[in-house]
Amino acid sequence: MEFDTIAAISTPMGEGAIAIVRLSGDQAIEIADRLFIAKNKKKLEMMETHTIHYGHIQEPKTGDIVEEVMVSMMRGPKTFTREDVVEINCHGGMVSVNRILQLVLKYGARLAEPGEFTKRAFLNGRIDLSQAEAVMDLIRAKTDKAMNVAINQIEGRLSKLIQGLRQEILETLAHVEVNIDYPEYDDVEEMTHHVLLDKAKKVQSQIESLLQTASQGKILREGISTVIIGRPNVGKSSLLNSLVQENKAIVTDIPGTTRDVIEEYVNIRGVPLRLVDTAGIRETEDIVERIGVERSRKVLKEADLILLVLNYSEELSDEDINLFKAIEGMDAIILVNKTDLPPKIDLDKVRKLASNQPVITTSLLNEEGIDQLEEAIAALFFEGELDVGDITYVSNSRHIALLNQALQSIEDAITAVENGTPIDLVQIDMTRAWELLGEIIGDAVHESLIDQLFSQFCLGK
Amino acid sequence: MEFDTIAAISTPMGEGAIAIVRLSGDQAIEIADRLFIAKNKKKLEMMETHTIHYGHIQEPKTGDIVEEVMVSMMRGPKTFTREDVVEINCHGGMVSVNRILQLVLKYGARLAEPGEFTKRAFLNGRIDLSQAEAVMDLIRAKTDKAMNVAINQIEGRLSKLIQGLRQEILETLAHVEVNIDYPEYDDVEEMTHHVLLDKAKKVQSQIESLLQTASQGKILREGISTVIIGRPNVGKSSLLNSLVQENKAIVTDIPGTTRDVIEEYVNIRGVPLRLVDTAGIRETEDIVERIGVERSRKVLKEADLILLVLNYSEELSDEDINLFKAIEGMDAIILVNKTDLPPKIDLDKVRKLASNQPVITTSLLNEEGIDQLEEAIAALFFEGELDVGDITYVSNSRHIALLNQALQSIEDAITAVENGTPIDLVQIDMTRAWELLGEIIGDAVHESLIDQLFSQFCLGK
Repeated sequence: MEFDTIAAISTPMGEGAIAIVRLSGDQAIEIADRLFIAKNKKKLEMMETHTIHYGHIQEPKTGDIVEEVMVSMMRGPKTFTREDVVEINCHGGMVSVNRILQLVLKYGARLAEPGEFTKRAFLNGRIDLSQAEAVMDLIRAKTDKAMNVAINQIEGRLSKLIQGLRQEILETLAHVEVNIDYPEYDDVEEMTHHVLLDKAKKVQSQIESLLQTASQGKILREGISTVIIGRPNVGKSSLLNSLVQENKAIVTDIPGTTRDVIEEYVNIRGVPLRLVDTAGIRETEDIVERIGVERSRKVLKEADLILLVLNYSEELSDEDINLFKAIEGMDAIILVNKTDLPPKIDLDKVRKLASNQPVITTSLLNEEGIDQLEEAIAALFFEGELDVGDITYVSNSRHIALLNQALQSIEDAITAVENGTPIDLVQIDMTRAWELLGEIIGDAVHESLIDQLFSQFCLGK
Repeated sequence: MEFDTIAAISTPMGEGAIAIVRLSGDQAIEIADRLFIAKNKKKLEMMETHTIHYGHIQEPKTGDIVEEVMVSMMRGPKTFTREDVVEINCHGGMVSVNRILQLVLKYGARLAEPGEFTKRAFLNGRIDLSQAEAVMDLIRAKTDKAMNVAINQIEGRLSKLIQGLRQEILETLAHVEVNIDYPEYDDVEEMTHHVLLDKAKKVQSQIESLLQTASQGKILREGISTVIIGRPNVGKSSLLNSLVQENKAIVTDIPGTTRDVIEEYVNIRGVPLRLVDTAGIRETEDIVERIGVERSRKVLKEADLILLVLNYSEELSDEDINLFKAIEGMDAIILVNKTDLPPKIDLDKVRKLASNQPVITTSLLNEEGIDQLEEAIAALFFEGELDVGDITYVSNSRHIALLNQALQSIEDAITAVENGTPIDLVQIDMTRAWELLGEIIGDAVHESLIDQLFSQFCLGK
């Protein structure tokens, strides 16, 4: 395919040692040559591919030296996009890198849309859609394990599984087709049914086992959405702080709200806990009060995990009991905090209210009980050790939805065969499953979906 | 010189398309080869210098694939540090780049201190101290003009001037030495005095003209420190907002105070205005009230420019008059705002109180008067057009201080010659000037100063 030449700043914004303006497209090298004066005066055009050159960026019209740079020149197809790629590597100031970008745009490039480099890698066939999506997952990964899931997907492990399933379905359909076209034998129909059922069940079981990885995969990718609740002054802030401090949190700001930290990630035994609405906790020490009972119920419902904090040195209040009711049947852990103070709470009653939910006593002040909490979290979500290396996880909601739909189509096909439905109708279900699986890897996906997916990427990727 | 191999993340922290781990030192290539599996399986060690290679980072012990990377390999001395340099270019996630850094440190590199790469460039003689300092200025530059000052300095224009001055002094000293050693002629002493005076005055005038660029150079580099004052509700926030909005501000967070924006930069006709304590204005709409009269006087004193806002539709209050007193004799511009409302203020009295300070009427609501304000600011600090391209600015406080001291020594020498002081005493002053100028470019600078200068750099530079 042929596209125009795009350019963007590919390093995060901010002061740093190095910033990069990346160009991709047929004219990438030509545009760079208009601005770049190599120390040896040679043009990039004349250089070997995959080489690095020292020199300066010069405004061609005025002759002004704009920056001192290193330029990497890579000719397609052995590049990220399969097109010619030039990376202008400059001193990492914001003004500096912006100025180079402006010059590059002035002399022939177009500003890349978010994700457009990766989109070209996809459109030019270097990677499929699930691999492209994994590139973004990798960038956003909050833990090593999330990163492993993403890198496995980039390496094409999920793609291979999906391709295998599609191949299976395709061969079955071909086989059926042949039998329909050459119905020389009496038992053709029976044989066809038999083969179909056999293959469909095989595909069904494979999709099912992939889907079994989904809940863990999703948690690895997105984190366990966690809400801390409890009456004022039971120690919610202390809990938040000790989780954050002990686990090297990566604090994230949601774009657009630069001042409020809405989410914080902490890494509990390799699993990211996404602490929701921490700003609320830090500021008012009372999420339930602050956001109102109705909304808090909604927040609770969307959470994967609730940490309910009680006060060891106070009797259970009606409010506590209401909180227990609000989290009934949810994945929750009950923390009875402040064991450093005299006991007043009725622990038996707490355990009864908790029903199956684990109860842990802590003294956050004395840093006691955090280990047990972490064990309880791990036990709740992961049985045994997580070994990401060996399993291909499905972690992306889009993939999970498509797998579920494909599974449904396969099951429809199986039911149809079992009910003796005519083969051509069964074929429709099988074909549908094949198409749905294809959407995961981007085969015959609608353009608008592709645009939408890549628009979620960061600039310069 | 020989150093150990250092490594750091050289791109800003945050999610981006590309992140770089940089290594420099004798073992840079060897360490990279321990972790990097090129697609063609070849070792970097065997490759040509200044080439780029695609492959994966692998944990050598477990064989786990950690990341998909591009590796740039550059052998010294044609590198940033003059040492062997390897840049591992990975997908821009924080976990990803941290993991690669950890591996690199585990397999032989040491974590670089802030500025240590640039420090090596200096210690290995690729750049002098003023060039190294300009690297940091370039990164921190807030406007194109500040960047031009820095890039000129990186290119060594200031260094050449300083070297020229030192050469001049050195030749004079040599000439004097010769005359002292061979006093064959009667008029030797007179001649020596004559030559000395001549040369010293030439150096004096050159240092003076360099110092004349200092105030503008400092402003270009650091911005005009600006404070907005005025009674509540006169429109300080509106002024701040319109300056910020119309001038594509670069908002900076001071490290450590992530939530409060303490300073904001706006670009007024190429000159950065550094708006101080904007958080105070935004939050309480009253800096004087908030920080107390004593402290506010201090803030005012440290400012390069004060913008005093008055209310056009209210009579002058005692508070207004006190503010006028507080800024007496300072560089200030008086804004009489809210001309959209009926006039009540006595403009003649305002002009009288303002004395030489310019008075501008504005209606920030209707976006009127901003242009005049910008003109007034430009007129106050820059006569005529700023043409950074042609002038070598001294912008760094350390350089300015050293130039002033060197000038003092030269002037002492001149006075001494004029007073007929013995030549060997005059020589001492001249030598001192030569040494002081040398400190600018890092000749014979104390190690602790060097450490301190580079510690202000960002990580990975």
